[in-house]
Amino acid sequence: MRRLLITLSALFLLAGCASTDETNPLERLIQSSEQSDQAYEIVTSLTTEVGPRIPGSEADKRAVAWAESLFKSLQFDKVYKQPVRVRNWSRGLADARVIAPFPQQLVITALGGSVATQPGGLEASVVMFESLEELQQAKAEQVKDRIVFINKRMQRDRAGRGYGPVVIGRARGAIEAAKLGAHAVLIRSVGTSNSRFAHTGAMRYDDSVERIPAGALSNADADNLERMINDGHDVRLFVDMRAKEHGWQTSYNVIGEITGTEKPDEVVLIGAHLDSWDEGTGALDDGAGVGIVVAAANLLKQTTGAPKRTLRVVLYAAEEIGLVGAREYARANESDLANIVVAAESDFGAGRIYQIDTRFAPDALAEATTLFDALAPLGIVKGNNEASGGPDISMLPAKGVPVVSLRQDGTYYFDYHHTPNDTLDKIDIDAIRQNQTAYAIFSYLMANGDIDPRPAPQLGSAR
Amino acid sequence: MRRLLITLSALFLLAGCASTDETNPLERLIQSSEQSDQAYEIVTSLTTEVGPRIPGSEADKRAVAWAESLFKSLQFDKVYKQPVRVRNWSRGLADARVIAPFPQQLVITALGGSVATQPGGLEASVVMFESLEELQQAKAEQVKDRIVFINKRMQRDRAGRGYGPVVIGRARGAIEAAKLGAHAVLIRSVGTSNSRFAHTGAMRYDDSVERIPAGALSNADADNLERMINDGHDVRLFVDMRAKEHGWQTSYNVIGEITGTEKPDEVVLIGAHLDSWDEGTGALDDGAGVGIVVAAANLLKQTTGAPKRTLRVVLYAAEEIGLVGAREYARANESDLANIVVAAESDFGAGRIYQIDTRFAPDALAEATTLFDALAPLGIVKGNNEASGGPDISMLPAKGVPVVSLRQDGTYYFDYHHTPNDTLDKIDIDAIRQNQTAYAIFSYLMANGDIDPRPAPQLGSAR
Repeated sequence: MRRLLITLSALFLLAGCASTDETNPLERLIQSSEQSDQAYEIVTSLTTEVGPRIPGSEADKRAVAWAESLFKSLQFDKVYKQPVRVRNWSRGLADARVIAPFPQQLVITALGGSVATQPGGLEASVVMFESLEELQQAKAEQVKDRIVFINKRMQRDRAGRGYGPVVIGRARGAIEAAKLGAHAVLIRSVGTSNSRFAHTGAMRYDDSVERIPAGALSNADADNLERMINDGHDVRLFVDMRAKEHGWQTSYNVIGEITGTEKPDEVVLIGAHLDSWDEGTGALDDGAGVGIVVAAANLLKQTTGAPKRTLRVVLYAAEEIGLVGAREYARANESDLANIVVAAESDFGAGRIYQIDTRFAPDALAEATTLFDALAPLGIVKGNNEASGGPDISMLPAKGVPVVSLRQDGTYYFDYHHTPNDTLDKIDIDAIRQNQTAYAIFSYLMANGDIDPRPAPQLGSAR
Repeated sequence: MRRLLITLSALFLLAGCASTDETNPLERLIQSSEQSDQAYEIVTSLTTEVGPRIPGSEADKRAVAWAESLFKSLQFDKVYKQPVRVRNWSRGLADARVIAPFPQQLVITALGGSVATQPGGLEASVVMFESLEELQQAKAEQVKDRIVFINKRMQRDRAGRGYGPVVIGRARGAIEAAKLGAHAVLIRSVGTSNSRFAHTGAMRYDDSVERIPAGALSNADADNLERMINDGHDVRLFVDMRAKEHGWQTSYNVIGEITGTEKPDEVVLIGAHLDSWDEGTGALDDGAGVGIVVAAANLLKQTTGAPKRTLRVVLYAAEEIGLVGAREYARANESDLANIVVAAESDFGAGRIYQIDTRFAPDALAEATTLFDALAPLGIVKGNNEASGGPDISMLPAKGVPVVSLRQDGTYYFDYHHTPNDTLDKIDIDAIRQNQTAYAIFSYLMANGDIDPRPAPQLGSAR
């Protein structure tokens, strides 16, 4: 972590200077952050010195050591790990080719958790459906012994609203295809770019039906396959996937705290997830989040000193394979959850934050005006009071824990999400700095002020 | 070619209708082209029904059959093939990983024609140079037993002027590194995108030095490696490349002609190359060119009938591995070259044409005003008289053959060039239609008019 520490030390001196002036602490913190590339440097360190880190792998263990070492080098008051049992899976080769009528290579990747094909691969004709729903309505004779191709295209949207309607095909495609006797399922990637990458991501099986291999085609390859099929051809594919399960491993939630000076038992939690998929370097998903929350907490500590409440930074394990670290965190800390005053997670890349949604006790919303006003100069507007807070804290509001969603511009997030192309160069340094400043402001005001938004309101079944 | 023929037939009817009106023939041709997606449909057919087509491969043979069938289905007057001997090379696996200090996968590809690594791959420390020139000035003790990394970055430019200064490292890197005892050479890709693709392309060996494996890293991976090295680490890589030479094969220049009505021995030549690298589908390089020149000739034939001079469309073999088809064309047709009134090649993607450069006998430039005037409404300005004409006709001016360069906007061409990402979706349908119209205008005026720009002027040593 040499590279990082040099620049962090330089920053420390700078912050030390700034702390002597007469402006108010929040202003000093904002100035400090606006002069700091710390979030960017942390994600640079993580992607360069660890790289991809799929849960339970050797690289995941190195990521845990990196995170622990980072918190310690930044002299957080408490640094500890929480063990999490994870199933380790490796992708292996994923090869697909058109055999007939027009032999050519396709770009695919295995969906996370998929079984392998039989040794030597499989060959079958393709049947195309426009959506999971269309597959569900198909007859077995259309599907039996074939490769199912689900061709639903994701729509681009700032808030990522194109994801939900399409990701269901990734999650359940193998189950629905297997019910009708398919040999394998391939989906059009859940992604918005025309760069020729296939997007991986978690999928599920159902013990009542056969486990069949599941993969994703890049958008360009899905287009090509679609053209062949729409031209009336019986398209035969060869698919060879060599994914493997490696059994249970231990990973860790890595936690760093700055202990509160007045109310140490009251906790402001900011989080991100430490794991990533294995093909990119996990820069946007979620190295950016790691950089943002660690830098925000560290800038606060360096610039304004320990806050009144405890500021806890949680780097969750194994988010990608089903929020495994987050569920363990909620389980192991169940008796402590009532002490969490508010939680927020950064896990949507490094785009600028444009809105703050909350899930605060309605009475506390008026007090929170100081928070909304402090964020406004960053271009962040007040949103609704129905926030989910982010994947790893999504189970907390049901336990009464208030959450905030600092909503990032995700217009381009799904161009890179879960692909080999999720690398450091996709992060805009000014945009990640704006995130860092917003999390610093949020952390400062929630950990030093009197806002207590507990308990989170429970939302209707509409959520 | 079912898909293509349906739409071409529909267009034929449309063009038939248009030909009954009273406007002048060139106006009718322009109108026809502006209503036609023919170039786009041809490249769609080639990329969908053939796909990648490396010289001498089975796919290359299918491309030759496709091209012959296309000319015949379009009822060109003469369709013939010219055999070309090519060496067939296959890429095989290309794997590279950082072993120490920060183990992670890198994205590489083999340079075209590279030898394989020894079985089982090789492991060595990396030495980085900022350019080929810096490598040439190095001492053997810096380089011996290492992997050389040439880290020169290509600059984006509309005219592609960033290519030349960088491609020399791709061409000669293996020679210069081997002279100093390196085990292998990796270059930063010759490409302008931050999409995580490595760019392949031809490289050379020199019989006087050892042949060492040569590959390219994606820009993102070159960045990562550069960071590790600049942080002072001894970076060790594992590289495994399994490229193979498969010996001599026969490929073909495929040629279609529309015989001239008045001066059949005088030839207007428009060309593109039929082969492609093996990772993309060869859409921009050079399916687009194939679509543009075939569509332009076909629209001319359908709309205005056979021209006075012969219009010859040459689809060259094996451009990518060293202009092999073009050299054979020039050799085999040497006695006929004097009959070529003018030649033009489309081989720079599908961006809009913004300029016409010529290499015309100076006396003919005044006559050529009709050509410049006809192209101006397409946004094409008159350029210089020092055109090279394009790779496959670059050897013709020295033989006195006049050439034209219809210069395309290449701002984004090197984002995709020689990568798996060179696929159909990168072609803008309006831009390729503008190219088609420009080639149709050029073909019509040069094949029907009195402009005779022979002989091409010989340029000074400055070129």
